[in-house]
Amino acid sequence: MAYRKMTRIFVESDLAPGVSLRTTAGQAHYLLSVMRMKRGDTLAVFNGRDGEFSARIAEAGHRVCTLELGERLRAQRAKGNLWLCFALLKRARVDYLVEKATELGVAELHPVITARTIASRANLDRLRANTIEAAEQSERLTVPVLHEPVTLADLIAGWSRGRRLIFCDETGQSPPIAAALKDVAGAPCAVLIGPEGGFADSELDLLRRLPFVCAVGLGPRVLRADTAALAALAVVQAVIGDWSATRSR
Amino acid sequence: MAYRKMTRIFVESDLAPGVSLRTTAGQAHYLLSVMRMKRGDTLAVFNGRDGEFSARIAEAGHRVCTLELGERLRAQRAKGNLWLCFALLKRARVDYLVEKATELGVAELHPVITARTIASRANLDRLRANTIEAAEQSERLTVPVLHEPVTLADLIAGWSRGRRLIFCDETGQSPPIAAALKDVAGAPCAVLIGPEGGFADSELDLLRRLPFVCAVGLGPRVLRADTAALAALAVVQAVIGDWSATRSR
Repeated sequence: MAYRKMTRIFVESDLAPGVSLRTTAGQAHYLLSVMRMKRGDTLAVFNGRDGEFSARIAEAGHRVCTLELGERLRAQRAKGNLWLCFALLKRARVDYLVEKATELGVAELHPVITARTIASRANLDRLRANTIEAAEQSERLTVPVLHEPVTLADLIAGWSRGRRLIFCDETGQSPPIAAALKDVAGAPCAVLIGPEGGFADSELDLLRRLPFVCAVGLGPRVLRADTAALAALAVVQAVIGDWSATRSR
Repeated sequence: MAYRKMTRIFVESDLAPGVSLRTTAGQAHYLLSVMRMKRGDTLAVFNGRDGEFSARIAEAGHRVCTLELGERLRAQRAKGNLWLCFALLKRARVDYLVEKATELGVAELHPVITARTIASRANLDRLRANTIEAAEQSERLTVPVLHEPVTLADLIAGWSRGRRLIFCDETGQSPPIAAALKDVAGAPCAVLIGPEGGFADSELDLLRRLPFVCAVGLGPRVLRADTAALAALAVVQAVIGDWSATRSR
């Protein structure tokens, strides 16, 4: 049979067999109105800590559902260790980027403000909601950690030297990503993507001097910032990341 | 200096030094109102056949600009040979997919109708406009060929056996893409992505029996159809495609 997704929701509560929990109003709307579920129907819940549990809708109200937890379906797994550091983009593109990065298994999202970043603020509540929805749909057991925006200088100043920073270089001067990744295999990694206008010269000089930076090229065409981020994340996961694992159910 | 994009437009006319050509009304609006260009300013034009030429705005009218061509900036290159066959998706996602596939260097786009495809029609004029805009922005010298939608059965029936079909298998039963691609390196390739609801059992059986199909897995998470398409295209280009080339200017 073809793979079928189970309806899944992310909750904050602790999870264990037999526990009852109450959904938010938004979750009740999603389960009853969007997914057309009824009392007695079964879904899956996860909280990022206790694995994934089967849950039955015990009471179906307009503003809240009560769920009763059944068996544990999957044990919690390590959350992965790939970060994405990305210059803030316009709303539609950053929404898309956050959704896709979640599907591609990013553990932490670090919005960055660079010299040419146009957007200076991010609606973190909206982005957080996007990460939760994407985690629910992609069968993840965790939601990525979304950080407050920081300047590139502060990001670099606070960098842990053991983590390699895969800098997507749009100038065409860096080696192709598939070859360059051989140098970082086995280390914790982060992908860094600049703004639509590119990094400023002073930023490029800084990045190229840092010992933990691995500069990579993404081919002969010019990619939009969101495309570059998704392409780099996919290649990292496929070549040195968790795509060698298979799905757990 | 950081890489700066030149304003570029795609035209149908033949290109040669000294030729004059007239823009469409949409292009005149783009050059004068969006890009704030004026008479005497310089841009680049390409037509998918004759390479890329410098062009000066000789007359700037509200509904048409006249361009005078200067030197050839880049010779025409082979258009690449990677196809994308994709089950039709809802409007916003198919728009995004077509834009990203163009940036990632796809030569031909084949919309496919499968058993579980929800959208049965595509606005090919709108998708064609998306491919042109993405080609202009990504420095491509060609616009991808956009085909009429066909059923999966017809796509398979007309398949040229020399081209490998990289089938993105969401059931978790296929080998990871980076390893599986070793089997298709050197051959012309197409990536095949199913609809959001997945392929039907009969379609999966058909695909797995075909000698030109290479089934690949895209990691432990469930990806949306558009994410799967972009991720697979990026990995194909990085591992066996044209990302070993560097940018030509």
